[in-house]
Parts: sequence; structure tokens; C-alpha cells
Amino acid sequence: MELLKERILRDGKVKEGGILKVDSFLNHQMDIGLLQEIGKEFRRLFPDESINKILTIEASGIGIAAITAQYFGNLPVVFAKKTKSKNLDGELYTAPVVSFTRGTQFDVQVAAKFLGPEDHVLVIDDFLARGQALKGLMQIVERSGAKLAGCGIVIEKGFQEGGRELRAAGVNLHSLAIIDSIEGGKIQFRQE
Amino acid sequence: MELLKERILRDGKVKEGGILKVDSFLNHQMDIGLLQEIGKEFRRLFPDESINKILTIEASGIGIAAITAQYFGNLPVVFAKKTKSKNLDGELYTAPVVSFTRGTQFDVQVAAKFLGPEDHVLVIDDFLARGQALKGLMQIVERSGAKLAGCGIVIEKGFQEGGRELRAAGVNLHSLAIIDSIEGGKIQFRQE
Repeated sequence: MELLKERILRDGKVKEGGILKVDSFLNHQMDIGLLQEIGKEFRRLFPDESINKILTIEASGIGIAAITAQYFGNLPVVFAKKTKSKNLDGELYTAPVVSFTRGTQFDVQVAAKFLGPEDHVLVIDDFLARGQALKGLMQIVERSGAKLAGCGIVIEKGFQEGGRELRAAGVNLHSLAIIDSIEGGKIQFRQE
Repeated sequence: MELLKERILRDGKVKEGGILKVDSFLNHQMDIGLLQEIGKEFRRLFPDESINKILTIEASGIGIAAITAQYFGNLPVVFAKKTKSKNLDGELYTAPVVSFTRGTQFDVQVAAKFLGPEDHVLVIDDFLARGQALKGLMQIVERSGAKLAGCGIVIEKGFQEGGRELRAAGVNLHSLAIIDSIEGGKIQFRQE
């Protein structure tokens, strides 16, 4: 997605430790016009009319998934939670996730009543690196008996293993921008 | 907002300890069509054309704020963070918040580069009860030198003190549904 790549080149910042900061337009401040274009692109990449639910994970996935859902006929969006809350009760699907950025482990959780065998689920997230969060969401989809339609990612770090592993496993994965290298602070995208 | 009140009566669940669960349409699963109506109502309540930024707090505020921003000419949305991350660096505005639902205290944080004296900020959140999160966001707006246009809340628990205190302090606060009592599991809205 050219518009996204241009934006990453213009406003993304490469930090030590393989960190790409896109906080000025994606995951701290959000450019809503850009999210609309991202949503349209996900619709083009996942045209399957039987998709009936979008699943994402708090926090950065939520805005992207909410805007994207508008291009899928206002499908319901479920966001998985990372922390226990008094608001989260009843039967839960959980999966363990190691966070690379935060240096912590946590359980990703979805109330069982919001996913089931009748669902055909598109998973949306902002970043794919090692694929931990995405694998956690996919485990939850599988446990619920729902069918996975695919995974839509805004930015994939192609120099980490998550995308390769998921594609090898046959997952219908689309990333709007795949970065193959950020060495020396220079962002290089994968050619499509 | 009648549509919202009807939805709360239909799908909201009252739990012990003054908890109102609206997870089937607002803060775990999101009804995007409802969020669009919420966004339109916020626009009607905050018609000030000089508003140039929307501020919310992760996680449940993000979807509401992102959809709402579309009715404000796609204004940028900044979401305050509740946890430290390698992605959050540089100068920060922080304010302490006690969470009633989670039984914890945390710092709400916004990168200083995303708020400043040139900003006229609308604060959006899903719930107002004791007003801790909202007061934290307002402190951050004040510290940044930005001007507060107002606060838009989806559901206010009118039987807790946050809304009363903020109105007494002159805050331009609008809640789309104010619940005056949930005693005995019966939801009673404030008459407007």
C-alpha cells in the first residue's frame, strides 16, 4: 500500500533494538483518514462476503479494526483484552502471549460468548513481528470453533519470523507494508 | 440519546458492586453502527469548529474516539497510554489514575509532542463514574498548555460523584446516557 509506505518513510522513526516508531499516525496519535484508506485496502484484500466478525487486540488494534469494520458493512469488532478486569467474567478463551515491545508475558482473553462456530473471523492488528499476539488470537479463534478468514496486518517486520511462519502454515495473511530491513536507520520495504 | 438508552436497557447487565456490563456492544464487542450514531451525537453536542484534536484513553475509548473523529472532519485522535512501553519515549505528560474497575493505580501518559498550546481538545471516553481517568486526561491537557473544549462521555454513572464534581468545576461535560440508579438490577436513567 503506497500511501502507507510513503507515510512510514516520512513520519516513521527507527530506534535502537529494531523498534520502528509510528506513533505520530498509527499507535499513539491516529490519522483517521489514513485508517480509512487502510480499511478500504483490507476490504479489497479480504473480499470474502462470509466474514461476519473482526477480532483484534487492545490497544493499538482497536482504532484500525473499528474504522476497517465500516468497509465490511459495519461488522461487529471484538477486541481481546490483555488484563483481568471485573468487567471480564463468565467463560473466557485465553492464550499466552509474550510481548517483544513490553518485555512481558500476558494472557490474551476473549469472552466465550463473543466467538463461536457460527463465526468467520478476520483478525486485524497493527504490527506483526514475531507473531506472538497474532498466534494468540488465532488460538482463541480455533478454540472457539470459529473459522479464520485471514489476518490483516498494517506493518509487518519481515526481518522477524512471524510472517514467514504463518504463511508457511497456510494462513491467509496480508500485510499492507512489509519492512525487510531497518539496518542503519534506513527502512527498506519488500518489493511486491 | 434514546438509541443508546434502549440498547443499555436491552443488552446491559447489572452486576454486583455497581458494575454495569455493556461488553456486548461497547467495550469488548463494539457495535460500529451504534458508535457512528454516538459520533454524530458528540458532533451535535460539541459544534465548536475550533476543536482540532480528540484525546481518549486506552483501551475502550479508542474505538469510540476513532469513529467519532470522522464526524469532526477526521481530526487526529491521541490515545493516552496506561503502561510504560519501549514505544513510548521522549518527553511525557503523566497523571496518576486510580481505577475503580481494576482496583489498581496507574499513570496515564501522553507523549508531549502530541499536545500543545495550539490544541483545542475534546476528551472522549466510554464511562464516567468517579471521574479519575477523566481528571487525569484533563490534567494532561492543562499541563500541555492546550485548551479543553469539553468532555464527551458515552455512559455516566450519575450515582457516583465524577460528573457532579466536573460540572461544578465548570467543565463542558456531555454524557449520552446518565444512569441515576442500578439498585436491584434496575437501570434508571436521569430525565433530561
